[in-house]
Amino acid sequence: MYKPVHSFQNVSRRGEDFKVGELIVRRGTRIKPWHIGALASLNIDRVKVFLKPKIGILSTGSELVELESELKPGKIVNSSKTMLKALINSCGGVPVDLGIVEDDVKQIADKIEEGTKNCDILITTGGTSIGRGDLVPTAVNLLGKVLVHGLAMRSGKPTGFGLVKEKLVFMLSGFPVVALIGFNLFVKPAINSLLCTTSEPSPRIVGRLTRRVASLSAMRSCVRVKVVRSGDSYIVEPLRLTGSGLISTLTEANGLLVIPENIEGYDEGEEIEVELFDPVINIEIE
Amino acid sequence: MYKPVHSFQNVSRRGEDFKVGELIVRRGTRIKPWHIGALASLNIDRVKVFLKPKIGILSTGSELVELESELKPGKIVNSSKTMLKALINSCGGVPVDLGIVEDDVKQIADKIEEGTKNCDILITTGGTSIGRGDLVPTAVNLLGKVLVHGLAMRSGKPTGFGLVKEKLVFMLSGFPVVALIGFNLFVKPAINSLLCTTSEPSPRIVGRLTRRVASLSAMRSCVRVKVVRSGDSYIVEPLRLTGSGLISTLTEANGLLVIPENIEGYDEGEEIEVELFDPVINIEIE
Repeated sequence: MYKPVHSFQNVSRRGEDFKVGELIVRRGTRIKPWHIGALASLNIDRVKVFLKPKIGILSTGSELVELESELKPGKIVNSSKTMLKALINSCGGVPVDLGIVEDDVKQIADKIEEGTKNCDILITTGGTSIGRGDLVPTAVNLLGKVLVHGLAMRSGKPTGFGLVKEKLVFMLSGFPVVALIGFNLFVKPAINSLLCTTSEPSPRIVGRLTRRVASLSAMRSCVRVKVVRSGDSYIVEPLRLTGSGLISTLTEANGLLVIPENIEGYDEGEEIEVELFDPVINIEIE
Repeated sequence: MYKPVHSFQNVSRRGEDFKVGELIVRRGTRIKPWHIGALASLNIDRVKVFLKPKIGILSTGSELVELESELKPGKIVNSSKTMLKALINSCGGVPVDLGIVEDDVKQIADKIEEGTKNCDILITTGGTSIGRGDLVPTAVNLLGKVLVHGLAMRSGKPTGFGLVKEKLVFMLSGFPVVALIGFNLFVKPAINSLLCTTSEPSPRIVGRLTRRVASLSAMRSCVRVKVVRSGDSYIVEPLRLTGSGLISTLTEANGLLVIPENIEGYDEGEEIEVELFDPVINIEIE
């Protein structure tokens, strides 16, 4: 019983909630406040959990400097690493900072090898362009094998992954916006898989496009959009597709529109479904 | 520039991303990994944030003992408090434990008064039944004023709130399942309001009911449901409405179906929309 009761109607019978031997929380469940409540009611204050996987981040690029360094001409802050650390934390991994390495295959390979010793998964950023800038895939092939390099996806073409000493190495773009897409599509499911869990359900919303968005033929497009509410309906404004380095779309967008490979695009005014990752903006308070 | 480039097409122009004076992250935004990425790209490693509000939790009930105590007959673990602490953390508040107090108006009032000194918001659990068990509202009326007590909602009838020394006091049920509903409906928006922010968008799904759910006339019903995927469609199984202490629905349910006041219920096989708070269960792996 939880409180004084006034009639038998509210009396809890022994075993009414959980029976001996009954499963309370399924393996692979992310423990939420309600699971904690159920466990506490059975006087359980600790449960066995999976060890958080260690995810190494190796940033490549001779132009990169650490956050809060003095910025000299031609240098840029390694913002992708800072973002990736937060992303890894948010999906239950432990980020391991493997530092910044110059555009040099030998140095990159040494760092990747070092990373595979301490980490469960490796992420590299930069140096994955197909052609001349192909340093990371070259390094991965020295130590192990590139399995996928180059996706029929915009933005994300240079994304890939390989296997080095039985560890997955994800090769992400150095552009934060493209690295984010690559992380969500490939790294997050890999972390979930090590944790024997699944992704959380993602909120979706149907709205009307403010302008036509075109896709490249035979390419999947991920378009960052700004969803605003106007009265009872939602308006979806596609942000610029070009300029994958356009960091402002990281803060301006609150949704993602995926245009499948077999569709040329969507027309102005068309109703489409987008994934929401930040709250909708109320047009009244703008 | 973010990487060596091979043509002018990829050269970033100064100011292409953010212009001087431009707003990067709107006030009231919950800082996500992508906001961190955008801020880092501008070499910003700290921002002003709102102080996390302190939310006091006062548990009432002579039958309650703390988690991990030795359980004697007639005693039950204060599982609502453990759950509420996790809920408060998850929405950006700092839980303050005001302990357990017996079913005594004077003691309850003293603890509420103490809580209003250190906390921004107070939550009480238990002692809110309308009638004989009405201890918390009585205590609140001694110190301040009960504004709402008794909701046309199932489960949640005894939920209420009042004002004591300009602090909101939320009176939640002692039953964890009902306390959870009360927290989500009332306390969470209040915490958001102190943080000048809004709730995150919540995932919704449309599925088919396995059986009829009836509602009480002129009452809003919150029915916890279990959503499973079978092939391409979703099946929604309503869990028992009765027995608000039925903690097993906390772990068995992954969704919430709200039946509005003006609807008598939904039929078996009817397509309804539910809010999802845990991943859908794949029927194949069951």
